Amino acid sequence: MNNSTIGKRRIVMKLSGSIFNITNTNAESIRRYAKMLLEISNTFQPIVVTGGGKIARHYINIARSLGSDEANLDIIGIEVSRLNAKLLISALGEQVYSQVPKNLEEVAIAAASGQIVIAGGLHPGQSTNATSALIAETVKASKFLNATDVDGIYDSDPKKNRNAKLFERITIKECMEILGSESSMAGKYELIDIVALKVIERSRIPTWVLRSNVSNIKHAVNNDFKYHVGTEIVVEPTFK
Amino acid sequence: MNNSTIGKRRIVMKLSGSIFNITNTNAESIRRYAKMLLEISNTFQPIVVTGGGKIARHYINIARSLGSDEANLDIIGIEVSRLNAKLLISALGEQVYSQVPKNLEEVAIAAASGQIVIAGGLHPGQSTNATSALIAETVKASKFLNATDVDGIYDSDPKKNRNAKLFERITIKECMEILGSESSMAGKYELIDIVALKVIERSRIPTWVLRSNVSNIKHAVNNDFKYHVGTEIVVEPTFK
Amino acid sequence: MNNSTIGKRRIVMKLSGSIFNITNTNAESIRRYAKMLLEISNTFQPIVVTGGGKIARHYINIARSLGSDEANLDIIGIEVSRLNAKLLISALGEQVYSQVPKNLEEVAIAAASGQIVIAGGLHPGQSTNATSALIAETVKASKFLNATDVDGIYDSDPKKNRNAKLFERITIKECMEILGSESSMAGKYELIDIVALKVIERSRIPTWVLRSNVSNIKHAVNNDFKYHVGTEIVVEPTFK
Amino acid sequence: MNNSTIGKRRIVMKLSGSIFNITNTNAESIRRYAKMLLEISNTFQPIVVTGGGKIARHYINIARSLGSDEANLDIIGIEVSRLNAKLLISALGEQVYSQVPKNLEEVAIAAASGQIVIAGGLHPGQSTNATSALIAETVKASKFLNATDVDGIYDSDPKKNRNAKLFERITIKECMEILGSESSMAGKYELIDIVALKVIERSRIPTWVLRSNVSNIKHAVNNDFKYHVGTEIVVEPTFK
Amino acid sequence: MNNSTIGKRRIVMKLSGSIFNITNTNAESIRRYAKMLLEISNTFQPIVVTGGGKIARHYINIARSLGSDEANLDIIGIEVSRLNAKLLISALGEQVYSQVPKNLEEVAIAAASGQIVIAGGLHPGQSTNATSALIAETVKASKFLNATDVDGIYDSDPKKNRNAKLFERITIKECMEILGSESSMAGKYELIDIVALKVIERSRIPTWVLRSNVSNIKHAVNNDFKYHVGTEIVVEPTFK
Amino acid sequence: MNNSTIGKRRIVMKLSGSIFNITNTNAESIRRYAKMLLEISNTFQPIVVTGGGKIARHYINIARSLGSDEANLDIIGIEVSRLNAKLLISALGEQVYSQVPKNLEEVAIAAASGQIVIAGGLHPGQSTNATSALIAETVKASKFLNATDVDGIYDSDPKKNRNAKLFERITIKECMEILGSESSMAGKYELIDIVALKVIERSRIPTWVLRSNVSNIKHAVNNDFKYHVGTEIVVEPTFK
Repeated sequence: MNNSTIGKRRIVMKLSGSIFNITNTNAESIRRYAKMLLEISNTFQPIVVTGGGKIARHYINIARSLGSDEANLDIIGIEVSRLNAKLLISALGEQVYSQVPKNLEEVAIAAASGQIVIAGGLHPGQSTNATSALIAETVKASKFLNATDVDGIYDSDPKKNRNAKLFERITIKECMEILGSESSMAGKYELIDIVALKVIERSRIPTWVLRSNVSNIKHAVNNDFKYHVGTEIVVEPTFK
Repeated sequence: MNNSTIGKRRIVMKLSGSIFNITNTNAESIRRYAKMLLEISNTFQPIVVTGGGKIARHYINIARSLGSDEANLDIIGIEVSRLNAKLLISALGEQVYSQVPKNLEEVAIAAASGQIVIAGGLHPGQSTNATSALIAETVKASKFLNATDVDGIYDSDPKKNRNAKLFERITIKECMEILGSESSMAGKYELIDIVALKVIERSRIPTWVLRSNVSNIKHAVNNDFKYHVGTEIVVEPTFK
Repeated sequence: MNNSTIGKRRIVMKLSGSIFNITNTNAESIRRYAKMLLEISNTFQPIVVTGGGKIARHYINIARSLGSDEANLDIIGIEVSRLNAKLLISALGEQVYSQVPKNLEEVAIAAASGQIVIAGGLHPGQSTNATSALIAETVKASKFLNATDVDGIYDSDPKKNRNAKLFERITIKECMEILGSESSMAGKYELIDIVALKVIERSRIPTWVLRSNVSNIKHAVNNDFKYHVGTEIVVEPTFK
Repeated sequence: MNNSTIGKRRIVMKLSGSIFNITNTNAESIRRYAKMLLEISNTFQPIVVTGGGKIARHYINIARSLGSDEANLDIIGIEVSRLNAKLLISALGEQVYSQVPKNLEEVAIAAASGQIVIAGGLHPGQSTNATSALIAETVKASKFLNATDVDGIYDSDPKKNRNAKLFERITIKECMEILGSESSMAGKYELIDIVALKVIERSRIPTWVLRSNVSNIKHAVNNDFKYHVGTEIVVEPTFK
Repeated sequence: MNNSTIGKRRIVMKLSGSIFNITNTNAESIRRYAKMLLEISNTFQPIVVTGGGKIARHYINIARSLGSDEANLDIIGIEVSRLNAKLLISALGEQVYSQVPKNLEEVAIAAASGQIVIAGGLHPGQSTNATSALIAETVKASKFLNATDVDGIYDSDPKKNRNAKLFERITIKECMEILGSESSMAGKYELIDIVALKVIERSRIPTWVLRSNVSNIKHAVNNDFKYHVGTEIVVEPTFK
Repeated sequence: MNNSTIGKRRIVMKLSGSIFNITNTNAESIRRYAKMLLEISNTFQPIVVTGGGKIARHYINIARSLGSDEANLDIIGIEVSRLNAKLLISALGEQVYSQVPKNLEEVAIAAASGQIVIAGGLHPGQSTNATSALIAETVKASKFLNATDVDGIYDSDPKKNRNAKLFERITIKECMEILGSESSMAGKYELIDIVALKVIERSRIPTWVLRSNVSNIKHAVNNDFKYHVGTEIVVEPTFK
């Protein structure tokens, strides 16, 4: 048991499944994130939630075409995210809790070890986003980093609108309005965010949405404000 | 094992926790619902999800005042809903699956018995509404009845607006818009419905929101259209 | 993980369910007991077993009237006692093992953490009294405090006999004789004590039966003999 | 799955561990009991609880001499009784539930299969006698047979008193009085019976204590009153 | 619950992971095998064990390069094989046991349902070959089909020796000798076969090694000797 | 929790079941091994796997004669080995992990405690030899000691050939050849070793096969080369 992080403040981070979209066996992206987690663990206890990425989508697409119900597809996605968690655990040696926790109780027990904890999804019907927020709540995280494939939260879709503005800070309420206004097109991804937002709101968890890369995450962990890293979600209204 | 419902179509119903707000040991409301379920089980296999009611709120209020985190409060609510499930099981004799299933896998195994199944909540961060929809999806229910303390879905809050109009039918999209427009005041209850709505949409589950009483539920189960029972949520747009 | 009690001697205490009969959300009684446990944990590792109290009796009465079998009623009582355990856990912050152990193996694992442990009942057919004695045996407790709603063990029922004498010390054998002589009227409560007594006898666990309040328990923990606190049960015969 | 006993009334029988005290591999006693269970299963669903016998005592004695606590010794006894259960399962072929249930919930699930069920002990601190009574309660057994190494219940110890009288019928209350009067010498075995008696009383389970052999058990199962088989424990007072 | 296969003889088949090496979402190979299993289930109860295929090797290679120990790699392989099992379950509708059993006990419970059962690997350190043989033993299969990527067992490696002779029948002993003689080059795959062979030998399970395709498997299931399908492994010596 | 071995290198040892063939309650052999483990634990963390011994064979013989399938016999053997593990735990007081881990995940969690860990068998179809090698792999043991009833590995059976030569060192390859050449007579015991050898080879675990006694094991643990202790299995070829 590595005790070095016992008593440290905890940071929950949701890592995009894209980190695990690997086509060789070099797995450079996983190594980089593992190195970052080891550095962070000198100061904080990282609790990580991995996404499913391409292989999850591959399995889900096949199972759906074969007639699987949607709840079962969620379970398949969760199981691939847990395989990804195992890869990250493989890269973290002695400093990591060796098992992938499978529900909130197991996350609490794992976190009590003081080691780095790597989870995948937990429950069907719950996005890894929402799951990560619940984990942040359960382990009383001092910060929740949602590392994604975009730079943060925009006032409109940046792929469609070249002038879309990236928020530095946004209130929960503003965030919900933006999600609400796009609900007809956005597919299932808003759903995720609304559940997560409600959890963030009720437990007042300091939250950042940022593009997933090692330097961004380190800046956000260290409150290094020289660098612009994504969007901070604030529970209290911002006064513009 | 009572095999009488094997192969029957399944109906999932979410029963409001208020049925379990009992102040004597006569428990008349539970007996009435049990009798109704036995009748329905001649034709369908009922899968029921019970809410937590007053005792859940009592425990949650105390635990919150003592400093419990919100995820733990969810777990407390789930455990009270399971106690309520046990009460309903007590009233159903031989026709009911004797255990309260605790996750979607256990629900699937219980449903495979062909008996009446009574569950409570399943996962923290998920309303019994959303859980019920996921269960409906998993057991391939032919109908999902959401029995509540109101008559159905209105275009505005009937407690504030005497002219609020009750929908007979409503599309998922319309439903989300109504919920969205009230999000700033409605507390956590819309959250529930949005997750449930997304599940209903993706699996196209015929759904009714109706006031919980025995005759309403029987009419809805039997497609007895002479009686007005709540609001039907339709996946395809209705053309008004 | 708070290691402060690792290696400390353990004290098992059974707390009456009446502590949890709360009608507001102030929960003053739970706060007082939590404060006491934190004080004790400077010197000992407390392992607590909570009773079910009024809400357990409420659920049991309803379930019995609905036709539940008695073994199921035991399970309902156990589940309410676990909800009470969660309330006490909520009030104990970082110093407490965050889960409620559900069998003797889980109690042993929880106790190995060195933290305060709060359990409810464990098995149907076993009173929380007997369960507490088994837990005291398993964790090799140096003392077992049975905190009840009476001042200790009397030679006859003090509610019926104004001259009933409270024992300061009593042997196991004397204790069994008193219980035996009243078996026809005492309902199920003697049963509990006989099983507990047998466990106390076989493992020679120093045991006190005392009225549950914070100062009594502290005196008993600290062997503060200036104060009269309940009845000590001694394994060897006392020579009067 | 053999469905032949679905819907049949259930008989719970506690089989003495001495059946499993085998010194060769012929295992004639197990074969005889297996044959008897198969015959009975034409009419009833047998639910059996096996004792630990000599090998349990062997392991318990060694573990005690090595310093094991008593709760752990109970667990060792339970595990040997489960090995004995597996032997009986081996002899019952297709007609038996293939797993040994480990708690009351698993017993209920096993019994729902309609097959013959063979359990060992369930919980530490609970004799196989008491466990059997709880199982009888849980599965709503129409009869509980306690097959032992004596002919039934006597008014005094037949090994010491040649004139000891065997009861044909005895009330719960009389039974407790006899047990109570011998508590100082009887070791832990009375304890068992008192817990069992309380369960039998509260659930009014028709119970027989009889010498374990195949013909006795068959007579008791079939209410064959031509033969004297042990002592019937009656919940209502007998009028002598 | 689909009871149509209850009481039918059981056939265990190990399906090569290559069936699941799918690059589109049409999943034609899985559909074909599902259709075959449904046909077979009219006469037998199929119990299937799926391999891991390409995605298992992908994950294992990455995890190994990141420093994972070999036992963990086995677990990763098992989890991918279970994802493959879920795909096959998705294609089998109502006729299949809906869960993937995770150990021999769960396989036994699943098989007792009478439905088609689909498992993946069970334990680290055990090939799916050996696991399949153990499952065949546990469910008392009347036949074990090992569907592979070769035509059967040859006297030498057919990729290296154009004149390699395919056995129609082979004894266990001959089979072990062939495996033994190549042990220095064959990597870990002989290991698998030796464990499987020992199980086949001790339980005398009729076994065929054959190239995996739908018509081969149907011929082998139906003992259709007009067609040459792979190699039969016989427990008794063949006299040539 | 005793932290004294945290961070120490781990030694896995497989102890022959014969240590547990006890005919009295003195259990001198278990005490001696316990004392040895406590001494070793000053320098290393011992992880022990116990065999089943005579009582395992007794139960297996009876169950086989009653018709048990072989996989079930394996489970019976595992359960007796776990009883033996409990005996050794009883003799180790505070320094030992109090539970017997039941699969590789539980072994990893137990080992993380830093305490001495005592396991029995884990999975049917896997010898305790093979299981021990997998455990050595999982816990990254620096050494694996296989303590048996012979002095080490011979070039032929020493019971049949007086001139049989004991190897001081042997390569994996040589070892497999010896096992292979005797496969027709050796019963199931080679099987065990081949699986174990494959695991040892893939993870390059330094391994000794030696006669089980306390001084041999201590010499092997301490690399005390003055004493001849059994056969070292080397992964790289030895050059004779």
